[in-house]
Amino acid sequence: MHIAITGAAGFLGQRLVQQLLTRGELRQQPITRLTLIDQIEAPLPESGNVAVTSRALDITESGALDSVLAQRPDVIYHLAAVVSSAAEADLELGMRVNFDATRALLEGCRKQSLTDTRLIMASSVAAYGGELPEVLDDMTALHPQNSYGTQKAMCELLINDYSRRGLIDGLVLRLPTIVIRPGRPNAAASSFASSILREPLNGEEAICPVPVELPMFVMSPGKVVDALIHGAEVPSEALAPFRAFMLPGITVTVAEMLEALREAAGEKALSLVHHEPDPRIEAIVASWPARFETAKAKQLGFVGDDNFKQIIDAFVSEQS
Amino acid sequence: MHIAITGAAGFLGQRLVQQLLTRGELRQQPITRLTLIDQIEAPLPESGNVAVTSRALDITESGALDSVLAQRPDVIYHLAAVVSSAAEADLELGMRVNFDATRALLEGCRKQSLTDTRLIMASSVAAYGGELPEVLDDMTALHPQNSYGTQKAMCELLINDYSRRGLIDGLVLRLPTIVIRPGRPNAAASSFASSILREPLNGEEAICPVPVELPMFVMSPGKVVDALIHGAEVPSEALAPFRAFMLPGITVTVAEMLEALREAAGEKALSLVHHEPDPRIEAIVASWPARFETAKAKQLGFVGDDNFKQIIDAFVSEQS
Repeated sequence: MHIAITGAAGFLGQRLVQQLLTRGELRQQPITRLTLIDQIEAPLPESGNVAVTSRALDITESGALDSVLAQRPDVIYHLAAVVSSAAEADLELGMRVNFDATRALLEGCRKQSLTDTRLIMASSVAAYGGELPEVLDDMTALHPQNSYGTQKAMCELLINDYSRRGLIDGLVLRLPTIVIRPGRPNAAASSFASSILREPLNGEEAICPVPVELPMFVMSPGKVVDALIHGAEVPSEALAPFRAFMLPGITVTVAEMLEALREAAGEKALSLVHHEPDPRIEAIVASWPARFETAKAKQLGFVGDDNFKQIIDAFVSEQS
Repeated sequence: MHIAITGAAGFLGQRLVQQLLTRGELRQQPITRLTLIDQIEAPLPESGNVAVTSRALDITESGALDSVLAQRPDVIYHLAAVVSSAAEADLELGMRVNFDATRALLEGCRKQSLTDTRLIMASSVAAYGGELPEVLDDMTALHPQNSYGTQKAMCELLINDYSRRGLIDGLVLRLPTIVIRPGRPNAAASSFASSILREPLNGEEAICPVPVELPMFVMSPGKVVDALIHGAEVPSEALAPFRAFMLPGITVTVAEMLEALREAAGEKALSLVHHEPDPRIEAIVASWPARFETAKAKQLGFVGDDNFKQIIDAFVSEQS
């Protein structure tokens, strides 16, 4: 079992690599080879018997992935992407990385006749937008209001068509907002959702820029990685007629997130969160849909978090 | 008012040109120039005071449209496309003509800063597919089950994003099945829907390959052209958040179409239709959605046919 991962140096990529090495098998076959691909060389993990190669490649360059695809990977995780703020700031960059590179990957798979290779791409809640219903489902139209979501939605269509034509065995998982991310606050509009928990849990102060009534659709990093792995194991026949859908996140308000923080770490932790409204961030986050019926994902056996306390507990146990 | 039309030599393109010349104005401004673009030189109509240029161009060639766009057309109708059977038979051809040429057109508009140019593309019921609800609406997801529909859906997303970014003033109209087309039967799965009316009205025999209970979503050529013209006049502000939607066709069963034929031309005409089931054609046509709530189109003032008799009467009066 040879698994190739683009964007392998990123937060999700690294977690996925760790989890695959811990499992040691996929589809009941031993993992023998991992190829990690990113702009920079992804860190090489302790890998035991698994041959791990890390390659610094620009996937927007013509033929960049040819030598990897010639090794006929059984599963490809395509996580590499330009994030939403960068795609909005630079249309060409977003199109080149998020769309053209995905198309080139599909064409590369086609040239190598990788008809049975499971190609799994991460898509996003940013693909939804416009005048949305109160609760979204698998038949809600994608009317993205940002270039990142547009590019992801185009890739979804293309991966579905290549799969329908039998050129590849594709799957696209739309990810909820991932909470709690490790690391430091960053420029992403969603950054606060991790920060208001992670910083207080570490005894540090944090700023909450949105009203606490705001609902969000979230999933823990652990469950997202589990879903990526499950995505490699779902039988191909079960995926038609459309191979892109939202993962089963949970809907929580910021108030519920803070209450879970209080339960896990007490009033002192909660008092480290300062409320400083930022209308710009509120406008962006409030535009993200927060309520989904994820029937297809559930029917295919994808599993989300049970409740927000579980998300906090998992973060705490991973920290220690 | 300068109007450029790709696919101008086609059936719809030629009708649109005629209608524009008959009107003489668009957006209450006189039409001064028409640029007709197709693979072959589109026939030059009687044009009075309007400067009509016909250009044979391969829009898939880099920069093919540069000289046209440099003239800063006020409205561009993008009707050029590879039809569904050809796009299914040849993925590269479909991607090149249906998607890449549309993207190149958008980029060309961007380079010329045609931010106020209304770009109108024709999309299709083929963009819908999969497990559809009984009645579709403006929020029904596009899960195309053919490459033509996939490519059109990708163009819809791109045109919406370029419009949202203020690079162009785009609009995409999804067309119902057009009935009654002129000419002869062809290889299209929908060919029978025109043929079972057109041939008997001309005293000729025709074959109906589907059960008469089958519903279809149809629009007359005249109303489609009216919609293309109205599409140039809808105010830009009214189009957000998503600039692609289905036009208001009408739902009719084949039995209702044949009953309208009998009313218009009598039992003798009806007896010229022979029922020879073709499961292959039935399967394709039955997969097309036939019932839509077209709220957005109606709200924007797009108008369909009142009933099927009107469609037949219009055809008969155009023939004479």
